[in-house]
Order: sequence, then C-alpha cells, then structure tokens
Amino acid sequence: MAGRHRPYADAVPGLPPARYAYLGPEGTFTEAAARQVPAADRSDLEPYASVPAALEAVRLGDVQGAVVPLENSVEGSVNATLDELLSGEPLMITREVVLPVEFVLLARAGTDLSDVRQVTTHPHAEAQCRSWLAEHLPGVRVLPASSTAAAAAAVAAPDSPYDAAISAPVAGERYGLVVLAKAIGDNPDAVTRFVLVTRPGPAPQPTGADKTSLVAFIRDDHPGALLEILEQFTTRGVNLTRIESRPTGVGIGRYCFAVDCEGHVDDARVGEALMGLRRTCADVRFLGSYPRADGVPPTEAYGTANGDFADAAAWLHSLRG
Amino acid sequence: MAGRHRPYADAVPGLPPARYAYLGPEGTFTEAAARQVPAADRSDLEPYASVPAALEAVRLGDVQGAVVPLENSVEGSVNATLDELLSGEPLMITREVVLPVEFVLLARAGTDLSDVRQVTTHPHAEAQCRSWLAEHLPGVRVLPASSTAAAAAAVAAPDSPYDAAISAPVAGERYGLVVLAKAIGDNPDAVTRFVLVTRPGPAPQPTGADKTSLVAFIRDDHPGALLEILEQFTTRGVNLTRIESRPTGVGIGRYCFAVDCEGHVDDARVGEALMGLRRTCADVRFLGSYPRADGVPPTEAYGTANGDFADAAAWLHSLRG
Amino acid sequence: MAGRHRPYADAVPGLPPARYAYLGPEGTFTEAAARQVPAADRSDLEPYASVPAALEAVRLGDVQGAVVPLENSVEGSVNATLDELLSGEPLMITREVVLPVEFVLLARAGTDLSDVRQVTTHPHAEAQCRSWLAEHLPGVRVLPASSTAAAAAAVAAPDSPYDAAISAPVAGERYGLVVLAKAIGDNPDAVTRFVLVTRPGPAPQPTGADKTSLVAFIRDDHPGALLEILEQFTTRGVNLTRIESRPTGVGIGRYCFAVDCEGHVDDARVGEALMGLRRTCADVRFLGSYPRADGVPPTEAYGTANGDFADAAAWLHSLRG
Amino acid sequence: MAGRHRPYADAVPGLPPARYAYLGPEGTFTEAAARQVPAADRSDLEPYASVPAALEAVRLGDVQGAVVPLENSVEGSVNATLDELLSGEPLMITREVVLPVEFVLLARAGTDLSDVRQVTTHPHAEAQCRSWLAEHLPGVRVLPASSTAAAAAAVAAPDSPYDAAISAPVAGERYGLVVLAKAIGDNPDAVTRFVLVTRPGPAPQPTGADKTSLVAFIRDDHPGALLEILEQFTTRGVNLTRIESRPTGVGIGRYCFAVDCEGHVDDARVGEALMGLRRTCADVRFLGSYPRADGVPPTEAYGTANGDFADAAAWLHSLRG
Repeated sequence: MAGRHRPYADAVPGLPPARYAYLGPEGTFTEAAARQVPAADRSDLEPYASVPAALEAVRLGDVQGAVVPLENSVEGSVNATLDELLSGEPLMITREVVLPVEFVLLARAGTDLSDVRQVTTHPHAEAQCRSWLAEHLPGVRVLPASSTAAAAAAVAAPDSPYDAAISAPVAGERYGLVVLAKAIGDNPDAVTRFVLVTRPGPAPQPTGADKTSLVAFIRDDHPGALLEILEQFTTRGVNLTRIESRPTGVGIGRYCFAVDCEGHVDDARVGEALMGLRRTCADVRFLGSYPRADGVPPTEAYGTANGDFADAAAWLHSLRG
Repeated sequence: MAGRHRPYADAVPGLPPARYAYLGPEGTFTEAAARQVPAADRSDLEPYASVPAALEAVRLGDVQGAVVPLENSVEGSVNATLDELLSGEPLMITREVVLPVEFVLLARAGTDLSDVRQVTTHPHAEAQCRSWLAEHLPGVRVLPASSTAAAAAAVAAPDSPYDAAISAPVAGERYGLVVLAKAIGDNPDAVTRFVLVTRPGPAPQPTGADKTSLVAFIRDDHPGALLEILEQFTTRGVNLTRIESRPTGVGIGRYCFAVDCEGHVDDARVGEALMGLRRTCADVRFLGSYPRADGVPPTEAYGTANGDFADAAAWLHSLRG
Repeated sequence: MAGRHRPYADAVPGLPPARYAYLGPEGTFTEAAARQVPAADRSDLEPYASVPAALEAVRLGDVQGAVVPLENSVEGSVNATLDELLSGEPLMITREVVLPVEFVLLARAGTDLSDVRQVTTHPHAEAQCRSWLAEHLPGVRVLPASSTAAAAAAVAAPDSPYDAAISAPVAGERYGLVVLAKAIGDNPDAVTRFVLVTRPGPAPQPTGADKTSLVAFIRDDHPGALLEILEQFTTRGVNLTRIESRPTGVGIGRYCFAVDCEGHVDDARVGEALMGLRRTCADVRFLGSYPRADGVPPTEAYGTANGDFADAAAWLHSLRG
Repeated sequence: MAGRHRPYADAVPGLPPARYAYLGPEGTFTEAAARQVPAADRSDLEPYASVPAALEAVRLGDVQGAVVPLENSVEGSVNATLDELLSGEPLMITREVVLPVEFVLLARAGTDLSDVRQVTTHPHAEAQCRSWLAEHLPGVRVLPASSTAAAAAAVAAPDSPYDAAISAPVAGERYGLVVLAKAIGDNPDAVTRFVLVTRPGPAPQPTGADKTSLVAFIRDDHPGALLEILEQFTTRGVNLTRIESRPTGVGIGRYCFAVDCEGHVDDARVGEALMGLRRTCADVRFLGSYPRADGVPPTEAYGTANGDFADAAAWLHSLRG
C-alpha cells in the first residue's frame, strides 16, 4: 500500500514555489531533515529562530508547513514543539523524518587534523563526541557555540579563531567546509526525530505502516487515571510507541498525555480507541496519522484487523434483530 | 422507559393457551417463580423432572418457554442450567425472577406445633432451618425427601408417617396443607434466582434497568486471559453482576466464563463490549438482555451514555474527513 | 517435590480408626471420590445426607474430614459446598479429587440388556445418557430416583419394579449388582471435582503442582471492582483456574469471589497476591493450598519464581541503605 | 515529618566550602534554582556549559552535586538530563526545585521603557513573551541570544547595541541591570523543574510528601508492555506524577520509561512496586526518593498504608503456620 501515499502539499507547476519553515539556523540537523521531505525540498526552505516562531508561521499561512524536532534533538527544545502542538490553534503532523545523529568534524580547506587546536560546537554535541575527542584530539580546546550550525559558520568566517567545528554533515555544504572526520559521535545508533507540521486537513492515506499522534487530557488525577487511558488502547490491541505526560499549566495536578500509537485513524481499532478517549477524557487533541519513517507495519493482535471489527459489527446487528 | 416493556410471548386470544415448562415437581420454589411470570401464569404450566428435560422441551417447541433456577437454588442443580445454556442449540433468557427463599412448616389441618414429632424435607432446606428447628422443635426427627415439594406431598399422603414438611409456601396451596410456622429459615435475606428461557428471538425492549447474559470462551489459557475479557467490559464502563468460570470439557485448561452485566444489548456500551469479546474470544454465546428483577438502573460511568458514544462517533467521522 | 507430600490426617496405628464423612448415600460418585483419598479409605467412611451436615460434622470434630463435591457434580448442590465454606467457622481444603463422570447400567445378576423395560436414575444422569438410551434402549421407561445411588438401591431391593439403574460404578459393588453396559454417558470427557475438607491447620507441603483456594469479599460494588481483585493476581503472574462470584446475602449488590489459583501459599507470588487482597478487600478467607489432582505444574511467568522475589527483596534492601 | 529532613551534603565547618555545579551561564533560571538549595547556596556554585558536563563533574567527584533542569526548561535540553541519568555511572536525585518561569525586562540604569528599540533574548523566551511585547513594545526589534543570561550580559557590555534583555530576575543582580518590567510572560502559571543530582547514597529521609524517580527498561515490546509496568504501581495504589517513554538506542523498538511516582522508597507500597518492576523488567534504575517541592502529601488509597502492609504480612505469616 506504500505507493498510495501522495506527496503532501506539493508545489503546483506554474505557481510560485511553496514555502516551508524549519528550526534554524541554516546547516542544522533540522535543515537536513527538511531536505528529506520531497515537497519541502522542492520549495523555499526558510529557517526560523525558534519552534514557536516556525509553527506560528504555519498557523498564519505564511508557510505550507514547518519541519521541527519532536524527539531527542541535539539542538533546540523538543518540549517546545509538543507544548505548541497541544495548545493554541490546532495543527497537524503529516510526516515524520528520523535521522541518524551523525557528527562530522569540519574545517576550512587545507586544514589537517594535526593542525587543529581550537574546536567549537554546541555543548550537547561536545558531550556526545567526548570519546572521539579524547582519543583523536587530546588536549584540544573546545569552545561553545549556540548551535552546531553556528559553530560551522564561525569556522567559515574570515579571521576565525577556530580551526574546526563539530556539526551536522549538511553544515559542511552550507558553509563551504571540508570534512576532517566522519561519524565521530560516541553512539553510532543515535537517531533524532522530526515532524512536518501543517494546518489541519485530511490525514495522508494509510500506507499499512502508519503512526497516529494525539494528546489526551485527563479529567481528574487519581491513581489509575493513566492506566484507564492506556486500557483504551490495549483493549483494542493498539500498541503505543511513545508516551509522555505533561503538566497542562492549569492548576496543580492536572496532566495530559502525549501519545504516539501504531496505526492510522482510518483503522477500525485506532478509531475505536480514539472514540474511547474522546468519551472518557476531559479533551483529546488529534495530532495526525502519517507514514512511519521506518516503514515497520504494526503488530496486529488477534481479532483487531478491520475485517474483525466489521464481522463483530455484523454479529451485533444480528443480535439486535 | 419501564412502560415500554411488552409482555413476552403472551397467550394469543382465541388460540389454545401457551404451555410453559418448569423444574418440578409441583409445589417447588421454581413453580412459585413461574407463577410470577404473567405469560406463564396465564398458560398451562408443566413440571419437568430435570432442567435439561425442561430446556429440551423449549428447543423442541413443545413449550413456549421454561422457568429454571440459575443461581443459589435450594433444590436442583444450578450448574445444569448453565451447562445446558452454553452448549447445544442456542436458547435465550428473556426474564428473570428473584424470589426470597421463604421456608414454611406445613402440616395437615388440625395439627398443632406441639404435635410434631417427625418432619420431612430436602436436606438443604433442613440445613437452612437448623436454628429454628433447634429452638422450636428440639429433639424432633427430620427425615430426608427428594425435594421440598415431595416432602409436602408425603405429609399430605394418606397414612403419612410424617407430621410436618419444610417447604415453599406454594406447596401448601398445592397439597392442601396449613402453615404451622412462617419464615423459619436462618437467613431472612436469602434469595434465589430463576430465569425464563425461550428460543432465540428479538430481546425484550430496554427498560432502563436491564441485564445482559453471555458466555465467553477463551482462546488460550494464559495468566491474564480472564483479565483481558473483563477489560472489554470495564473499558466501556459496563459493570458485571455475576461471573463464573466453567471448564468447557474439551481438553484440560480450557475455560469459558458465564457473565451477567448491567445494561441491554441495545446500549452502545454493551454493544461495543460484546463486539470486543466477539473479536478476541474463541467464541461468544449471547444469552439475552432482559429487565432486572430488582429494577435497579445501571451505574453509568462518565462518558458511557448512548449520547457519548454518538458524539464520539461524530467526532471520529470529522477527523476522518 | 511430589514425594514430600505426607498423607494428611492419617490413621494412627493402635488407635481407633479415624472417621471421615462424605455426601451420601452410599454408592454415589462422592463415595468413589472418598475412596481415592488414602487416609479416608483406610478409615471409617460415613455417608451424610447433605453437604452442610457433612461439613458440620467436621466443625464439631465428629470426623477428621469430609469429602464433598465442589464443581460440576452430577448430584447434590455444588453451591451448598461453597456457601458453607465461605461462612461460619473456617474450614480448609487439603486435597482435591477429580473423577471421570462414568455412568454404568446396573442390574440384578441374570438380567440381560434385552430384558430391560424400566430404568431408574437421577434426572441429571438421565439427561447425560440420553443418546445412549435412545440408541440401545429405545422405548424403555426411565423413572426418577433421588440419587444415582438410590436408583441402584431400588434395583437391588426385593420385588423391585425396576430392571436397571444408571449409576456410578461404585454403586454396583455396594448393592451387589452387575454391569450391563459401561461408559454410557454422552460426554466421555466429563469430570467432576471433589475436595477433602478439614479443620484449619498447616497446609500440606508444596509439591510443585498445587492449587490455592480463597474467597475475596469486595469492599464496594463499582465497575472495575472485580478487575482490581484480578490484578492482584496478574501483577504477580498468578494464573487463575476458577472464579465464581457469589452474592453474600448482606444487602443488594454485595459480592464475593471464590477463586482457585495455581500455586501454594508458600510460593512468594501467591503470598504477595494474598497480601494484596487482604489489604484491599473487605475480607479474605483462605481456603487452603493443596496438590492438584492433575499434577500439572503452574505456568511460571518471567520474574515470578521464588528466587526472583528474593533477588528483588535484596535489591530493595540495598536501595534503602 | 517535614522537620526530619536534614540538609543533604552540607558544608562542614572548618573545611573548605563544598562545590556545586549548575547549568550555566551565570544568571540563568538554573542558577536561581541552585540558589534555593541551602547546601548549594552556602557553597561555591559553578556554572557548567552543558548538562552532561555538570553531571560528569558529579561523577568525577569534582563537585558535591549539580543542579540541572528536568522538566519544561526555558533553556537547555531537558532530554539531556534524563539521558545522562539513565545511562553511565549511576547518579541520584536528592532534591527538586520548582520555580515560576518569571521573565523580566532588564536594562542599564537610566533607561526608560520608551527608550527601548532593540531587545535581545533566547528565542524560546521571546516566544513566551510575545503578547507583552506586542502590547508594550510594538515595532521593537528582538534579536536572538544563546541564553537569557547571555542576553543580559550583552546588554551590560560596554557599547552594547541592545537596549534591553528578557531574562530571569537573577540575571539583573548578576549583571547590574535594572528591571523595566516584571512578569512579562504570557503564561503567569508556567513553572519549571530542576533537580539536585549527587552520587548514589542513602536517600533523604521520608518527609510524608515525597517523590520517587526511576527508569524501567521493558523486556520486549508488545501491546500492553507499558500497561504491565503501570499495573505494578496501580496494584499497590501508587500514583504516578510523570511518565515519559524514551528509546534506549539499542536497536529499533526498545523502550524505557522514566517515571516519577508519589511516595518514598521506604514506603511499603513503593518498595513492593519497585520489587515488582525489578522482577519483571529487563532492568530498573532507581533515581532517588526526595521531598516534593510542593509539599503535597500522596493520595493514599485504601489498604496501602505501611500499617496495612504490616498487617497483611502478619496474616500471611499466620496462614503459612
């Protein structure tokens, strides 16, 4: 079914190109993620100084969509993305991009690894490359930058005091630097997750390997309240891939839960779970159904396929006579 | 809504009276229960020697329905009723009758309590009147009968060796005996439950205070299998009033669960729970929805009214676009 | 570990033999079950007219123990056993016996199957042999008896009007009858379960294949109350083999749950589940831990062996410093 | 019981003062949080460039403890704190500080609000003060800084191009600026949460209003795996205050759950829940028990007090004989 998915909000021939926002500055991992979204890559891609600013541009219609980090980001506040999505004018996630967190050491052309004395990068990136630095650049000085992209820009600047930057590969292209060393992060399996956010509309069609994101606001805070929410999923055989509680800011002890689950809003089991939440929670905000970046199809528990729901509905109909 | 309930399977004017079965012999608590079912009371009521025989008569069309004990009976095997309902040709419960277990001491006219030397009754009835017997008839001899009705019949027989019988009040009328003492059971709150069983058909209309009975056959026997069945109810806010596991007789470790829950198959929450069982169990046998004898309306948890289900369905429809 | 189990309450050499009760009359399936309990078989076995009478004899110390039906009995009220166990002076189950429900056709010596015109038996037994009767004795008359043993006794009586009885095999020996046909029940896999009940004392030692029986009284009746009880078991990986709700007779809507689970009170997981019930229920009545009749060892979920509990306790101790 | 809590790792008279780390630079909300920890406030407080660097200093023994953001931070990556805590050498949370996110507009002495043309701050702070800026400083230019503290420092610098900074109040004191406007954030209820992290040791004594933090690593990823973890808490009546799933980085589909719950590791119900997780999860990392910043005592469900656990243990002991 994967072929059924039509590129979302694509540019229209003969019209001015669409515009997409991303969390800047240029040369960040988020720009690299945005380049992986075909519709965005063919459009004008504009860096925004913060996640709220990028999402506000979507709400105002200044851009077709925005690519922002949702999980595990090296840079930027991931909480900011979630907090923006769960309040204010509704927005919708229509795509996810999962990128390996690949760090490279960038320098001006002609620099040799043995020439490097001063390195700049974002402190989180430094922390994630500590082992490599200790082994290959012992004694080198590492100075903080406000982002890995700003670090690359600083190295590229005339009269730069820095010899090299730890950045995303995309920053090398952006600032005309060469790669002195690749894959220098301590955890080669680290990934980071981004989403394309648009104004609300029909969800992309099911592909057979989809995720659904939502936020459920609990009615009152008692032991077992979270369990009751989760049972709405497990009773229908819907597997969660992520959960995070968030204070809602309205008084003490009020929580919401941001949840990603397997499956698409068009799936019977996901639909029934959503209705269960809608009935029993204070509020539910649907954040979208979209293809999984990893293409992994859902675990389908016994009796939870669309056909099983249809059979059960026919049976109930016959009982009711 | 109570007024909406139409008498079920009533006699039709101008036609020969309908026939109803009950677990005999005449004069038992089951006959008393059958007399409380208007349609049965207006019809020919026939005693059958066993629950299976009475239910077989229903299946064969010999009778319109049968009144049989389902819970807590003083006489007869309650398991037999359930076992008959969960196998063989489907049957349906269309009414329940809950009777106080009221024991009386019956004797021939002219007998005084001080004359009583030999009492007969069913051993279970003797056990339930032990305190009264010890206080009011110390030293009296109690001899076993095959039922409380047979005990009354034996007292009424010419040349009876017995002075009195412990029986249901209905046995007094039946065998022309007088009541020497009333309410002689040790537990004045004891009740026993009977059901009217018919061939399958549309359930009686909802009254607002209904029960639904069913049997769920689990697919495989693992820790938590029962819990998964119960979650199908609790997730939809459906309260159980009775549960009983039964071996299915097919190999070791295979179980089914006989369940009574609050509500009617026409209720949205009950319907969705039934569909959940249908999808995830090996089999589900619907045994009927019928008015509760006690007229107690269901506990209605937040978000589980029919209107809540309709609102949630409309919301999901809007999400699906 | 099976060898560790010491016969319970055995007769002591040189002393008068112990006495055991069973649900009579002589020649029933219950007597056959009692014969399978070594301690009872070596003792005086006495029939009692009802389950309450047999259990009262245990409470009064008249007998060492009583063998009574607990599940699925052909004769007698199984509910009576449970109701007796869950109220009154505490008693304890120390052994279970599971017997095939094997029906035989018994007659006086010299009777041939072709001579049989009138058969007597308990109505439930008749119902369970209906197919065999239809095939092998079409047109024969079947008359009710108060038990399958009483049926055999009636056939053995001088001038008996009956040619044959449907009974348990043990009734043939008891009343000097011969077997005209064996295994005449419609369900060859049917079994029935009996228990040996004694006064409270130390449970038989664990054998590695044990059951634990208890009754849990819920505090208040709300949707999910039963689920909370069951979670006390599933959280500790304890599998249930039987559950039955029972009204407690104290007001409307008050229930208790009779539960059999895998494992022994000495098992860590069973002990913790029992404590969880004790803390959160209105009351818990422990009915005993005893070897399973089928010798099937428990399903042992990950992390629920005694060693796992000991490791976890040591870890917690280290955390608490 | 609040008075029982002894300041943790306090400075010792006559010895050189203890040293504490915090996420810098100077003048951030994190410094303000660190100032609320008495032991830290009396010690040398040192800013670190990143959360990993601050926590590494704890592990190496360079500092007694580190104050880092754990939830909802305006600046810095909260994920970084959690990721550091759940891997590497174990650390322990011994205190939490919850601060209102109060933004102020800072300027050099003599500046009037009407003089302000250029403002600098961190983009997230700008986003959170958008309404105030639109109303009180329409048309003003806002330029990004790498932190709210860096913004204040930039305003304080000689020849600064900026007229004002949006910062934490503590930055005003730090950089000698005056407050032009207070409480300029759009959400007056916003709070942010910090923790004091030390090397492992005995937890602070229970105060009656405590939290416990831990990370549970699930064994395998199936529908209901999270539910099973949560049931370990709800079965013992332990209320969660926060939950967040995190990929563990080891292959696809492997998760852990960071959980905060009410109560102290010394509480019986918390201890039993911890043991349940220890037995059934792949791993559990205990992150500490510490007083709640808000002093709210736990919801105590029926049967979950320490005395209830002790009573149940005594009962089980008596059953085991």
